[in-house]
Order: sequence, then C-alpha cells, then structure tokens
Amino acid sequence: MAVAETQSNISRDQKLRQRAQRVIPGGMWGHQRAAAVPAGFPQFFDSGQGATVRDVDGNEYIDFMCAWGPIILGHQHPVVEAAAQAQAALGLCLDGPTEHVVDLAELVVEMIDHAQWALFQKNGSDAMTGCVTIARAGTGRRKVLVAHGAYHGAVPWCSPSLVGVTAEDRAHILHFDWNDTDSLETAIAQAGADLAAIVVSAFRHDLGVAMEMPTPAFAQAARAACDAAGAALIIDDVRAGFRLDLGGSWNLVGVQPDLSAWSKAIANGHPLAMITGNERFREAARNVFVTGSFWYSGAPMAAAAATLRELRRIDGPAVMARAGRRLRDGLAEQAARHGFALIQSGPPAMPLVQFAGDDAQATLGERFCIEALRRGVYMHHRHNMFLSCAHTEAVIDAALVATEGAFAALAAEGAANA
Amino acid sequence: MAVAETQSNISRDQKLRQRAQRVIPGGMWGHQRAAAVPAGFPQFFDSGQGATVRDVDGNEYIDFMCAWGPIILGHQHPVVEAAAQAQAALGLCLDGPTEHVVDLAELVVEMIDHAQWALFQKNGSDAMTGCVTIARAGTGRRKVLVAHGAYHGAVPWCSPSLVGVTAEDRAHILHFDWNDTDSLETAIAQAGADLAAIVVSAFRHDLGVAMEMPTPAFAQAARAACDAAGAALIIDDVRAGFRLDLGGSWNLVGVQPDLSAWSKAIANGHPLAMITGNERFREAARNVFVTGSFWYSGAPMAAAAATLRELRRIDGPAVMARAGRRLRDGLAEQAARHGFALIQSGPPAMPLVQFAGDDAQATLGERFCIEALRRGVYMHHRHNMFLSCAHTEAVIDAALVATEGAFAALAAEGAANA
Repeated sequence: MAVAETQSNISRDQKLRQRAQRVIPGGMWGHQRAAAVPAGFPQFFDSGQGATVRDVDGNEYIDFMCAWGPIILGHQHPVVEAAAQAQAALGLCLDGPTEHVVDLAELVVEMIDHAQWALFQKNGSDAMTGCVTIARAGTGRRKVLVAHGAYHGAVPWCSPSLVGVTAEDRAHILHFDWNDTDSLETAIAQAGADLAAIVVSAFRHDLGVAMEMPTPAFAQAARAACDAAGAALIIDDVRAGFRLDLGGSWNLVGVQPDLSAWSKAIANGHPLAMITGNERFREAARNVFVTGSFWYSGAPMAAAAATLRELRRIDGPAVMARAGRRLRDGLAEQAARHGFALIQSGPPAMPLVQFAGDDAQATLGERFCIEALRRGVYMHHRHNMFLSCAHTEAVIDAALVATEGAFAALAAEGAANA
Repeated sequence: MAVAETQSNISRDQKLRQRAQRVIPGGMWGHQRAAAVPAGFPQFFDSGQGATVRDVDGNEYIDFMCAWGPIILGHQHPVVEAAAQAQAALGLCLDGPTEHVVDLAELVVEMIDHAQWALFQKNGSDAMTGCVTIARAGTGRRKVLVAHGAYHGAVPWCSPSLVGVTAEDRAHILHFDWNDTDSLETAIAQAGADLAAIVVSAFRHDLGVAMEMPTPAFAQAARAACDAAGAALIIDDVRAGFRLDLGGSWNLVGVQPDLSAWSKAIANGHPLAMITGNERFREAARNVFVTGSFWYSGAPMAAAAATLRELRRIDGPAVMARAGRRLRDGLAEQAARHGFALIQSGPPAMPLVQFAGDDAQATLGERFCIEALRRGVYMHHRHNMFLSCAHTEAVIDAALVATEGAFAALAAEGAANA
C-alpha cells in the first residue's frame, strides 16, 4: 500500500524512468540520456510546437536545444510536415527511391557551393564514415587527420568512448590541434604519402570547452595541404549545417571542402543524412558500397527539400543569428548586473554559455540551467545550444525573463563569480 | 528539336534517371540501384498499397520484394500508420525520448525469448556494429567470427565491398563456413583466448546462392562454443527478423543468442533498428556509447509497437509461411509443366527462386523476372524475396497467373532447362 501510494504521487517522468530501468540498460543511452543533463531535468517528452517543448508531465519549456540540433524551423513546421505527409500517405519504403531523391539532390547541388553531387543516409555517423570511405577510395590512401577532442560520430573509428573499441579501429587516424597550423603540419608529415583526408568540424564545438571558429589562416592551410597532397578536405557539417551558411559552413572563411557530411537540421527533425562532394570524388562515391534499409524513403527527402527551401526563403541563418545575438546580449547584461562573469562562445545561432572560473563539471552552469528550467527555459551548460527560426524576438524576450530570475536566484544564494 | 521530341516520348522513370545521373554518382547507389535488378526494371516508385507497389509511370506490381524487407504487414498498413501519425502530429525529435521507447522495449522483452533489454537505432548496420561493440566491451576481447559470404551491413568492418576499406577495419574478423561445425571450430581455435563473439545470420541468405537454414547441430555447436569460451552468440536478425518467429529466428532450432540485431520489418517501413540482449550483456550495453540524432524519435517506435502487436495478433509468421508455400507450390507446378527445373530455397516467407543450371549472373532467372514484371509481378532473381501479411491467397493466385504467362513465354523461346 505504501508503495502504491508513493507510486501514485511520483511524476509520470519518474514512473517511466523506473520502467525504463528494467528494459533499457542504465535506463537510457547516448546523448539524450538524462544523466547527460543536470539532475532534475526531465527525461521524457511528448511534444513540441514552434520554439517550445513539453515533457510528459505537461511542463512546457522554451527550447534552446532544438532536439540537440534537428529542429531548425521550429517544432512541427507546417510546410515541412505537409511535404513529408504528402509522400508518407503514398508510401514509406518502396522497391526503389522516389522522385524526391532527385529533387533534393538537385536542390543541394544548387545551394551548397562545393556540391556537385549528393548521397543520402540516416545518421550523421553514416555520412562521416561515408566521407572517409570515399576519400580513401578516391585517393587510394588510408590516413585521416582529425582534431583532438572533436566529435565526429558514435561508431568505433570516431566514438568519444573507447569502450568496446579496438586499437585497429583507429589505426589510420592521426590528430592535430584545432586552429593550430603547426600541429596540422606535423600530422600531415606523419601521414606522409598515405594522407587520404583532413577532417574538420564547421567550428570547434567540443563538449565543455569554449567554442572556437576556424581562423582563415588555419582553414586555408588545411585546404592548401589537401591540394598539395591530393587528399580530401572533409567538413563535418552534421552539427552546424544550415545554421551558419546555407552554402556550407566554411563559406564563413572562404574555403570549400571536397566532401561534406550533413544531417541533424537537414529535414527539421525527419531522419536524414547526406554526403556532398565535388567532381573530383564523384567516381569514388560511385564505387563505394554504402546503403541502408530506409535510405531511399521519400518522406524525409521531401521534408528536407521543404526545409531547405524555407530556410532559403526566409534567410534562416540570418534569422537565427539575430535571435542568438539578442539572447547573448540579454544574458550578458543580466549577468553583469547580478555579478556574474560569463564566457559566451560559438556562433550566435549555436551558443555556449559558461561561467568564468566554473569547475570542470560546470557546477555553477548546472545550477543556472536548473533555475532556468524551473522558469520554463531548457538550456544546456556544457554542450552548445541551438537556436531555430521559431525563436522570435518575443520568444527570446520571454526566455530572458526566465534567465533574469535564474541569475537573481543564484545571486541570492551568493553564487556571484565576478 | 529532335532531342526535345525524344525527351517528351521517354518515360518518367527515364527522365528521372537522366536527371539523377547529374547529381547522384552513377545515378543511384546501394541495393536499390536499378543496376542491381534486370535491365528494364523501374528505378523510381511513387507509392505502395497492401501487396502492391506503383512506379512513377503508373505501372502497378504485386510486390515480392516488400521494399527489400521493411514492409511486413503490407504497404500503408492503417493501424501502423495511425500509431505513427499520432506521435508525429505531436513531435518528431524532442530534447529526450517519448514514452514509446519504454512501451516498445517492454513489448520486445516480452515477445523475444532471449531479450531482457533493448536499445534502438536507425540502420541494421548500427545494430550489428553495436552488437559487436557490446560483445567486445562485455568480454574484453576482440575476435569476431562471421560466415564467409554473409551480409551483415554496409560499413567498413563488414561491407561486401572492399573499396575504401582498410585491412585494419577487419583486423579482428575471422571466418567460418555456414553450417560447417569443423570450420567453426577451426576459427574458434584461431581466435583463442581473444574470442569475443560468433556472428550468425538467421539463415544463410547470401546473394545468388541457394538459401540454407541452420542445422540444429551447427546452431548448438555455436551456442556451446560461446558458452565454453565466455563469448557472445550474436544473431543478425536484421533481414529475417519477425518473418519466421516473433520470438527470434533461431527459435526454429531451439537456440538462444546473447545479442540480436533487428531492423527492416520492425516498424513496417518506418526507420528503426534494435539491439536486444540478455542479462549477461546488460552492463556492457550500458557502458558503450552509441547514439544518433534521430534515434529517440517516438513515431517510428510507436509504429514498431503497432507492427509487432499486429503480427502477434494475426500470427504473422504463419500467415506469411502459408502465402509463401502457396507461391512455391504454384511455381513448382508451373515450372514442371513448362519444362523448367527450379531450385526453390529459403523459408517460404523469404523465398529464393533459381533455375537449375543457370549461369552465375542468373541469366535465365533474369529473363523470367522480366517476363513477370511485364505481367505485373515484381520479383528478384538473385536476392531472396519477401512475403508480407498482405499477400493473401487471392494475391498469390493473381501473381501465379502472371508467372504462368512468364513460364509460357520463356518456353516459347525454347528456354526450358529440364
């Protein structure tokens, strides 16, 4: 009886967590495991609308994670949903692709500066692994250079975890330091005549450290090195793609890759990933064998075409940058007024907010996020956040009312760090 | 002008192929590339309904590929679509999973004999790679045994193509011959104290060769070897899963795996994959890091739960086995009458039809498929086909009218092989 009474008093989220513990190892896995966000954050959600998400207990939050990236026009965007539904009502998986694959490939070849062809997958990891495979096929070489600490997926060759990974999975991976041309040159020398590719993120967005945009000098050095060696420059635009520049994120520094990997925001939440490449790697892309059971489904491709056309129509990157600057300016003003020193980094559309001098676990950042959550704003203290085009001025201002309260609450506890 | 006139006279499929050639390497990729089926087969489709698919030129076919596996209840099953839509109308990707992940995990733990927990992904390759990673994590060992010629995915460690693959990607893969206990024991001896896992398909379904069910002796030997060595027995049930036995395909031979990989038919066309495991590997599954941007989406999980409950309600495997036997018996009778010797192999729900003495390209099988296609039946000559629960007696009988015509046409050309 006591147990039953207790059960009836706990939240729906807690009940689901208890059930999940029995049938899902550790209760949840991967980046959406609640253990990855501060205690007290909800684990289970039921819906989203525009810039808002709702958890299973009916609490609504202004959403600054956007499902960790996929939502770029706002949850349940009517134009995207209509496009997806039109195909989904006709067929999901068929014995071949639909015309949407051609329509979408033509659109991205038109929109993305370096793209002369496209291939579609389901996961960002599929696209990144595909880029590396194509680079190796096209060059006949093996060594792949990646930045220390960069996230490029959750498969053995690049996972941030070494559990269950063998040394051979990474036998041909060499490392350099982001924005450090000297270290890049050292790694290139290590690869020697076996250099297949240099892999870079759109910008440095490693967990828990200040974001860092590429310097033009570094970007140009990477491009020049690939040209000199006949290697592929691969941009991992999975996380940042379409939020900074619809033509490719390194347009910001005037450098074009040979191959790019895309996913997350490409279809506003519908499952899709993409490899784009230039003419030089077309033949290699034709020769590799990459496939998946659901890779030809038309509905996510129709959703992607609708998403990209809408982003182009409204100049989505500019919309998100404005919203992000409004948030950043507001937070900076509030923090200063309440005696906090913030480190705000990354492009405004993908901000990271850190407290100066915070510990490695970002304890103060975590406390701030919990206070914001209590006031209806969902933020993250260690991972970059994501703006969407549904983050209007009014939404940002509403969020700033909540963060004002959060700073005030922390200040009242004597947590000021400035 | 001549070109324009030509253009207006070609089919919609041909026009799409021409456009695709410019923006997709080789015009298409992977297993749904039309080059993988006989010339004259359509590349592009627009819809499916029940047991029928329609190409972009409006031709309808009784579908014996079922999208190469995913369609198990028939295209556009109303119960599945309603379940998916109910969640899709609320939200696609959110900041955490929905309750559907718990509901589905509970259902599969109840349905699948060896399953004590579940994890969800997007591709069969994700599930297989995850199983191998969990086995290595749980055993602290590296060697993985797979059958020569078996398909376990399209990523470097297991892809059927070596283009862009390095030797190190397969450094810890050892091979045995299907159903050959001696060769299995030899491979186990090669692995020695480093044996992490033995990987088996539900049955041998290699491209272009007769399908072969596991012998009980082989299955028991694999199980006993894993028990003796403390290694994981992994069943790749991606292709066969839910078509043979809802509790797991090796129930047919009375052997339970430690880990299983599932995908394709799990959600009747919605994108989902799954790893199930027993208690022994729960901790390892908790410790590995596997994740993806779309892996928490509720709609495909709601679709999966609806699919599995419907399969259980109607005893789907029995329905498909009956339909497959009716097809097999009908083809055998027709072939004999027209002077053809067939080799029909595999479980009835996943049949392969070969012509005795056909060449390696299955030229005669290809001619038969083309004749069937002209009469409204979509079959494959080298890859196993897939029945669905929408293949009623009436559908099979309609298909047999077409195949009767196909045999007669080949016989009239003097192609008889018996």
